[in-house]
Amino acid sequence: MAGFRVVKRVLITGAGGFIGRYAVPVLLEQGYDVHALARAGSDEHRVTSHLIDLLHPADEIERVVSSIRPSHLLHLAWCTKPGKYWNSVENIEWVEASLRLVRSFVACGGRRVVCAGTCAEYEWTCGCCSESETPIGPVSLYGVSKNALRAMLETFARQANVGFAWGRIFFPYGQGEHPERLVSSLANSLLQEKPVVCRNAGLMRDYIHVEDVAGALVALLSNDVEGPINIGSGHSCSLGEIAHKIAACTKREDLLECRETVGEEYPLVVADTRRLKGQLGFTPAVDLDEGIANTVDWCRKQLEEAR
Amino acid sequence: MAGFRVVKRVLITGAGGFIGRYAVPVLLEQGYDVHALARAGSDEHRVTSHLIDLLHPADEIERVVSSIRPSHLLHLAWCTKPGKYWNSVENIEWVEASLRLVRSFVACGGRRVVCAGTCAEYEWTCGCCSESETPIGPVSLYGVSKNALRAMLETFARQANVGFAWGRIFFPYGQGEHPERLVSSLANSLLQEKPVVCRNAGLMRDYIHVEDVAGALVALLSNDVEGPINIGSGHSCSLGEIAHKIAACTKREDLLECRETVGEEYPLVVADTRRLKGQLGFTPAVDLDEGIANTVDWCRKQLEEAR
Repeated sequence: MAGFRVVKRVLITGAGGFIGRYAVPVLLEQGYDVHALARAGSDEHRVTSHLIDLLHPADEIERVVSSIRPSHLLHLAWCTKPGKYWNSVENIEWVEASLRLVRSFVACGGRRVVCAGTCAEYEWTCGCCSESETPIGPVSLYGVSKNALRAMLETFARQANVGFAWGRIFFPYGQGEHPERLVSSLANSLLQEKPVVCRNAGLMRDYIHVEDVAGALVALLSNDVEGPINIGSGHSCSLGEIAHKIAACTKREDLLECRETVGEEYPLVVADTRRLKGQLGFTPAVDLDEGIANTVDWCRKQLEEAR
Repeated sequence: MAGFRVVKRVLITGAGGFIGRYAVPVLLEQGYDVHALARAGSDEHRVTSHLIDLLHPADEIERVVSSIRPSHLLHLAWCTKPGKYWNSVENIEWVEASLRLVRSFVACGGRRVVCAGTCAEYEWTCGCCSESETPIGPVSLYGVSKNALRAMLETFARQANVGFAWGRIFFPYGQGEHPERLVSSLANSLLQEKPVVCRNAGLMRDYIHVEDVAGALVALLSNDVEGPINIGSGHSCSLGEIAHKIAACTKREDLLECRETVGEEYPLVVADTRRLKGQLGFTPAVDLDEGIANTVDWCRKQLEEAR
């Protein structure tokens, strides 16, 4: 069928990261011309890589963005090292880099921006977090910085008449995650037959598979929903229950000990997914048992390969 | 009396701006070793000027700050062109520059930061703005950007154990102001015997003389009060009344016409000055009649010199 097709050219940051690696194939599948800003090249030959360090840019970003002239921007890059990222000064550097990036994108005629936000922007005393009703009240420098960036970009994009959506990601997990994240760290210990303690076992959290996170972000990019939107499963599960699921997959429940913490401050953090499902029309597909089983399998393969 | 005195070395930005020009002599008077970052040099030989454009820095800022090693930072520079600054993309650039500057300052061992914030961070439907009670609700990109910067710096400074205060400046006026600001623009027209219309004459605002603004900011720098603090007179006056005071000074009340606006959204914006007066111990000294008379005199001289 002959016809004229508008080229959707997306610029993605963090393409080689945990979520980015899942987002790239979905973008390609949807017909985007995919350009990645990265410190290292990509194995995916259908992606055009532009080698640049967003944190050390001078005028580089503007030059690179104007050479690409993307219509869409999917900005995922940030500091994410477990244990470090909550209060690292790198959060400040990422706000600077993100502002510079979006300014360049808008100046070069970009039409729609989607960024990775976080459930840490909400006040966690509220339990179920709704975009329209739950107060904003970040505590960590990570949450404060993400929220500050969102507020500025939301106002800036509206003025510049550029589409803008902000995916507030809850607790992502899955194959490819950092070995210090919850599922991997427990699985790796149990697979190596080491006893493990799951602390804060009573905390209820909304874990969502990385494949669903990536799918929701790309859906958001291709849609015209504006503003913040939760990216969570809409279901909560206690950390202890998750630990038991992992132990069951490894058949080493005997090595797991769960401990409750006294005086847990935030017993429940779960996404209100009415906007995600109703407005965006996106329903997470990977259920928790299946996702955990896959992640444990992946950990097993990683360990075997490392041997 | 012989003795060891700790050197207070302040780095000031915007030293040549409206407020900065009043802050510099106060800093010198208080014994600070004053270093200015500026695009142009200063006439004041007791100030060490470092020529740098904060908006086009690359790695310059870090190098310059580390050569100065200031203990104090008074950050006033921002985009301020009347009519333009509310929604200019420069607000975003100033957030980037400010984050970079404060990061460098902290990395070089700085001890205390004071920045110029704005009453535009508050929700203006509230009338009297209190630091602890009035909701934050900026509308313009200017207000949103200032507020986002404050939130990030507050968290970052606390973590880095650096003192931090944020002066929320209300409506500054005085000698040296931009000719398009309220007092100067009315005075200049009347002094040139042109008829003028004062629109929104019923709006009540908190005008504070620039000398008091500068005094409060330096007091804040030398004190250990933390967080946001209003810098206003604590008194409101209608724009129409201000216009009449100006007209009286020029003796051309016949040329002034005041108009009310139908459906004014924010009838009253005035500072709650309990923190300023009670905690900081600072009381504005220039009363409105005196301040307006001085500003009109200054306008007269400017016009005479231009002839």
